[in-house]
Order: sequence, then structure tokens, then C-alpha cells
Amino acid sequence: MSTSIAQVPIQRFHGEARVDFMDDLAIEEPLEIQLDVPGAGGPEPRSLSITMRTPGHDEELALGFLWTEGIIRGLGDLRQVGRTGCRANVVRVALQAHVAVDPQRLERHFYTTSSCGVCGKASIRALRTQSAYPPRPEGSGPFFPASLLHHLPERLRAAQAVFDATGGLHASALFDPSGACVVLREDVGRHNALDKVIGRALLDGLLPLEDHLLLVSGRASFELVQKASMAGLPFLGAVGAPSSLAVELAREAGMTLVGWLRDGRFNVYTGSWRLT
Amino acid sequence: MSTSIAQVPIQRFHGEARVDFMDDLAIEEPLEIQLDVPGAGGPEPRSLSITMRTPGHDEELALGFLWTEGIIRGLGDLRQVGRTGCRANVVRVALQAHVAVDPQRLERHFYTTSSCGVCGKASIRALRTQSAYPPRPEGSGPFFPASLLHHLPERLRAAQAVFDATGGLHASALFDPSGACVVLREDVGRHNALDKVIGRALLDGLLPLEDHLLLVSGRASFELVQKASMAGLPFLGAVGAPSSLAVELAREAGMTLVGWLRDGRFNVYTGSWRLT
Repeated sequence: MSTSIAQVPIQRFHGEARVDFMDDLAIEEPLEIQLDVPGAGGPEPRSLSITMRTPGHDEELALGFLWTEGIIRGLGDLRQVGRTGCRANVVRVALQAHVAVDPQRLERHFYTTSSCGVCGKASIRALRTQSAYPPRPEGSGPFFPASLLHHLPERLRAAQAVFDATGGLHASALFDPSGACVVLREDVGRHNALDKVIGRALLDGLLPLEDHLLLVSGRASFELVQKASMAGLPFLGAVGAPSSLAVELAREAGMTLVGWLRDGRFNVYTGSWRLT
Repeated sequence: MSTSIAQVPIQRFHGEARVDFMDDLAIEEPLEIQLDVPGAGGPEPRSLSITMRTPGHDEELALGFLWTEGIIRGLGDLRQVGRTGCRANVVRVALQAHVAVDPQRLERHFYTTSSCGVCGKASIRALRTQSAYPPRPEGSGPFFPASLLHHLPERLRAAQAVFDATGGLHASALFDPSGACVVLREDVGRHNALDKVIGRALLDGLLPLEDHLLLVSGRASFELVQKASMAGLPFLGAVGAPSSLAVELAREAGMTLVGWLRDGRFNVYTGSWRLT
């Protein structure tokens, strides 16, 4: 956890009184994801994205980003994943020669794609990344008892070590069909936390996550639903509110979207047939 | 407010009980910012950025984005700002011929810049946008009584109409030296809410905001501090926690950064001399 927290001296005010204090901060630093594509115009790796993230699990973040952007389709697409020398804020991913990456698409599309997956894209039409999976039909499983959902927030918080110290991080957690937490990641960026979870799932051979539940600590945006959809998830729960576009995209994908999951309550925005 | 809220039918669970319910959602839709630069390679306007935002105040958002990215330096740089025909999700900004925008810089830098201002930039060195203002020296004003700060959160919430309905929006509010709220904007993206405030301030001739306070509803990230710095603000308060890089950048800029501003308390992370 030492790469996730920084200690700084602050002054704490309560009314007019002030005291000196040491406070824990969530660390935020840029991470550059470089892509080495054979035959994509020279030997130089290309800068694909820079994201402001909390250090730790950077390879997972890079892999999750590449998966949710539709650039890789499995571990077999990878040749090498790692640091470049002593540069702590760069992860370089080398692809196998067989991976078809259209250089023009990289140039026009991915080079204007931010790690948040939607900003900077060259046209509104490009916003919806093509999912590798067809929409799930209405009435399809998996199915989850409502009682299972009520336990998830406490399990999320129990595993959220850095949030407890800093109050400054988003969390994303994957649960198996029994409600056990498989992996939890925290980050200053909510999209990064989810990319790290998906990257971990890729490394563990779990993709697509057809029977799992995902819970995010904050609000559910279009972007998070899109990433969850790209990972094949049938269920996304959020502790906070969803946006209009998040609900719309979840409905199109046949995903169950739950919001305000806390204190023994939740709202089902779409896909309510999965709750038994 | 009708462009900010969507009503959807949901199912609300409390324990095992479920009831049908109409819920209010914060609207999230893409906005494309197009830039028309005279002499920058043909008559076609260029797509500068796409951001997921809550509709409303879109021209302010575009102008605030252009200001905080350092592309415009005043209203005199603008030729026209507006919609293109009936396309509700596109704002086109035409610049005056005298505005020097390096086409290569646009291509290499801004085309890879997302609306969140940091993602997608082509190199980590480019992350720190050059501020138009020198750092403020230690000990410099303006100065604010601590008692003033304690009143700001309630004034923010009182003006946060959409949040109250949806629970799904970030807010950014500008206060004058007396603590009166000058402008408040809400958005699903915290950077958009701040860009809208800065765009409004530009239109009202208030930039640089040398005597004002800015309050944001959530956490303080690097990006928000950078945008505040580009607007000349001496003071940024956040209801939530700051990140390590937010504190670092605020210290470099000589800005006062306050976090956890709520319930009669706050923490001062840097620039505490401004609090009297």
C-alpha cells in the first residue's frame, strides 16, 4: 500500500481552532501506456494513452484498458508486458505479430482515446466500442437473490484498505456467483479501478465474466457500463446513482444495472428479471 | 432543468420487498467541441474533443475548456460560438484570424487531449499546461476568514438543484470575496462542471478570478487544480479529499487548497497563510 498513500503535513480547522496534523493522501500520478505493434510503422512503441492513476497494478490497468478498447482478445495476443527500464510511470505492451491492429485506426481512433475510454474520441459514432459479445436476451441468467446483493457493500468496504486511510479513492470489486469477493482494486480514477479488475481477470483466465457481479463504489456512468459490457459481465451494481446513458447502454446490452446499493436497499434500473 | 433530468421506471428493493417507482436520472450525453481555426489546413472545422456531459451551458463548457487548455486568451479571440444546425451535441467555436494556433500542436497535442484535460496527452511532459499566470508568492493575498469557509458548503448545496433530484452530479461553484455564490454549474463530469464555471466567468469578463473562491462538491484532483490555476484562482476548496498531485500542483502555483470542507471543519493542504 506504500505506493498508494502519501503523508503530508496539514492544518486542520474546527470552527476557528486550528491544529497541525499529518494526513494520508491518495497518490495520483500519470501512467503512460505504450503499445508495440509489429509492422505498425517502425520499431518505436507508440504512446497509446496517458491516465492519471494511483500507482500499483499498472500492468493490470494497461491490459484492462486494451481489453475494454477491443485491442486485445486474449493473453495469446501478448508478447511482453512490463516496465521500460527504470521508468515507473510507463507500461509497454508488445503484441504478437498475428494481432491485427489497423495503424490508421490506432492513429485516428486510439491516439485520441483517453484512458476514460470516451473522451477525445474523434467522432460521437466511435463512442460505442464494438462489444465482443451479443446482447443478452431478456429473461436470461445468471440469477441472483436480492439477499445476496445486500451483503456486497459491506464486503466492498471491508476490502477497501486505502479508502479507509484517505477517503480519496474509487473502488471496483468483482464477486463470484456466491457473493465472494474475487478481486478489488482502488484508484483515484473510477475507470482505472475497473480496468485493473478486468486486467486481473484476463490474467486469471476469467474473461468473459459471464457469471460474476461487479460493484463500483460511486456512480455508474456510460463508460463503466461500457467497460463492464466489454468484459461480458451480466450484472453491474453501484453504490451511487447511474446516469441516463448508463441505463440506456445497460438495457441495450441486456445487463442488469442496480444503483444506490446500500443500507439494505437498492434500485434496479434495468434487467430486473435476474433478481430472485 | 429539463435537459438535465430524465425520468425512468425502476424497481426499488428494500430487503426482499420490491415496489415500482419513477426515478430521476442525471442526463449524460456526448458533446463534441469543434474548432474552426483560420488557416489551419482547410475550411473544415476540426473535432477537438468529445466529452460525456450533462446537457446545458454547452457554450460555456466549450469556452471553459478552450481557456483552460490555453487555446484562447479572451473573448477577442472568438469569431463565433454556437450550434451547428440542429445538432444538439456539437458546439463549434470559430477563432479570429489573429489567434495563433499551431496546427501541428493541435494535431499532436489537442487532438489527443480529452475533455478531462489530462488523459490521452501525447507525453507526460505535456500534462502541465502552461499557466498564463506566474505562481503566487507565499504570504500573498487575498485573505479569507475561516468563518467564511464554513458557510460555503451549505450555499453550494442550496444551489444544487439537480443533485437534489438525482444524486448523480458533481457541482462547481464560484464565490466572490464576501462568500456570495456568483455561479454554480452541475455535470456528470467534475471537469465539465468546472469548465462551465470558467466559461461563464469568461463571458462575464471576470477572468482572471484573482479574488474569488472555488468550491467543488467532490474530491480535488490534479486536473481540477490545473483548471483552477489556469483561471487565476487563488483558492480551491473541496468537500472531499485531494490527491497527492493536486496538493503538489497547488503548492507550486501558490494556491490555497482546502479539503474535507463540511460540518464546520476543513483541512488546509497548502497556502494556509490566506486563512485569517
